[in-house]
Amino acid sequence: MYERTWTVRFSDTDPFGIAHYPRIVDAIHETSDMFMEAIGWPFWEISQEYGFGLPLVEMNFEFENPVEAGDDVTIELTPTLGNRSVKFEYVARCGGKVAFSGYEQRVCARTGGEGAIELPEDLREAMDAYTDD
Amino acid sequence: MYERTWTVRFSDTDPFGIAHYPRIVDAIHETSDMFMEAIGWPFWEISQEYGFGLPLVEMNFEFENPVEAGDDVTIELTPTLGNRSVKFEYVARCGGKVAFSGYEQRVCARTGGEGAIELPEDLREAMDAYTDD
Amino acid sequence: MYERTWTVRFSDTDPFGIAHYPRIVDAIHETSDMFMEAIGWPFWEISQEYGFGLPLVEMNFEFENPVEAGDDVTIELTPTLGNRSVKFEYVARCGGKVAFSGYEQRVCARTGGEGAIELPEDLREAMDAYTDD
Amino acid sequence: MYERTWTVRFSDTDPFGIAHYPRIVDAIHETSDMFMEAIGWPFWEISQEYGFGLPLVEMNFEFENPVEAGDDVTIELTPTLGNRSVKFEYVARCGGKVAFSGYEQRVCARTGGEGAIELPEDLREAMDAYTDD
Repeated sequence: MYERTWTVRFSDTDPFGIAHYPRIVDAIHETSDMFMEAIGWPFWEISQEYGFGLPLVEMNFEFENPVEAGDDVTIELTPTLGNRSVKFEYVARCGGKVAFSGYEQRVCARTGGEGAIELPEDLREAMDAYTDD
Repeated sequence: MYERTWTVRFSDTDPFGIAHYPRIVDAIHETSDMFMEAIGWPFWEISQEYGFGLPLVEMNFEFENPVEAGDDVTIELTPTLGNRSVKFEYVARCGGKVAFSGYEQRVCARTGGEGAIELPEDLREAMDAYTDD
Repeated sequence: MYERTWTVRFSDTDPFGIAHYPRIVDAIHETSDMFMEAIGWPFWEISQEYGFGLPLVEMNFEFENPVEAGDDVTIELTPTLGNRSVKFEYVARCGGKVAFSGYEQRVCARTGGEGAIELPEDLREAMDAYTDD
Repeated sequence: MYERTWTVRFSDTDPFGIAHYPRIVDAIHETSDMFMEAIGWPFWEISQEYGFGLPLVEMNFEFENPVEAGDDVTIELTPTLGNRSVKFEYVARCGGKVAFSGYEQRVCARTGGEGAIELPEDLREAMDAYTDD
């Protein structure tokens, strides 16, 4: 799996001192962006150079424990490969507890086009290094 | 149900001219905030005046059709009342099509406290005017 | 001048219950977007249909009084027209006091091109209705 | 001075592939937060533990060159100390060019109180290591 640390900032926090949900979602999306960059297929290149994208079709997250400014939150991302889609599963931990977890379901689609296409073989291989098995 | 119109702004859009997902999530959360204000129980008052909150425990959204800058997106919110929780269901439409839909599951919890409490009767009545039945 | 009301949301606020600065900046930018739409030259159309944009080259804001969740903040925008540029001046008031004020300096530039061009005559006329004199 | 690298993400970018201004402002504010943490006086601690804050009273930024998704932008922060205030000056560079620069003027104020107070001596010393002289 892929892992990064998100430090919650003062500007992410609410009147109770805990992170606003939309700011947590920002951190999740940033994690997917960092992962794609780490495997050599950044979001900003795949459409321009390869003519496809991985648009989000579903997101599902559970928020189990709040996080506060200054918390270092470890966010893990594990991809599960389909033929024409990929699921990014996330688990975020802080202080030994799960803070939030869930998944993004993404499809592989030709830029500006209709319908899903198969994940390119090179991309499958790049992601495979981070899958669960 | 409750309904508001969200106009997608230039600053919400990506290199393909469609709204970024985190900006859509911002619009969804803004809708819950507007709803609570509309029924007379704004998020910013319930903790200060009544000592409880409605923290999010789960969110699940499907993105069916992209939206573009200038689009007027109608976002409907329908609450479903539990004893100690409330579900906000959303359907967003644009140009006759569903753009995105899903729900937020929220629990009723005493501010700073442990465990869920029953929804106050007055709040139930205020929300009841917007439920499905 | 152009005027809109911004309602500060719970999700905009910090541990002191006042709006985070970046969320105020979001509201300012949203106001420029709403103004351009109101005069019939939305940001999302001018580049596609007329081949130019109004990129920001400077912003300067003073924050005089904090705003809280639930506050209805009146934001005024007054354009001042140059030959190849336009300045948007803002004054935001809440409860009879100035909350924040400042300006955005924007240049008129051909999309993807180099250097500034003159503001189109039709756009000047559309903005003229909102200038100070 | 203090320095950090901001990687522009896909979700920061607009239809021209360059970062939206509000997202640049997010990165600037994040930099001030990282700086305060680096010197041992994080924003989230100073009010709780020392009873003061550094609210923003003015911001002034110039945008000289656009930045794109994937760009590694070096953001430098240099504090200039006043008696009851501090100015954070920023220069952001990418690919050998200045992308944006400017400053935030902040005052030292007792939490919830009126008027400015002197910067605590320990904080002055912590910042001094990063000043220009």
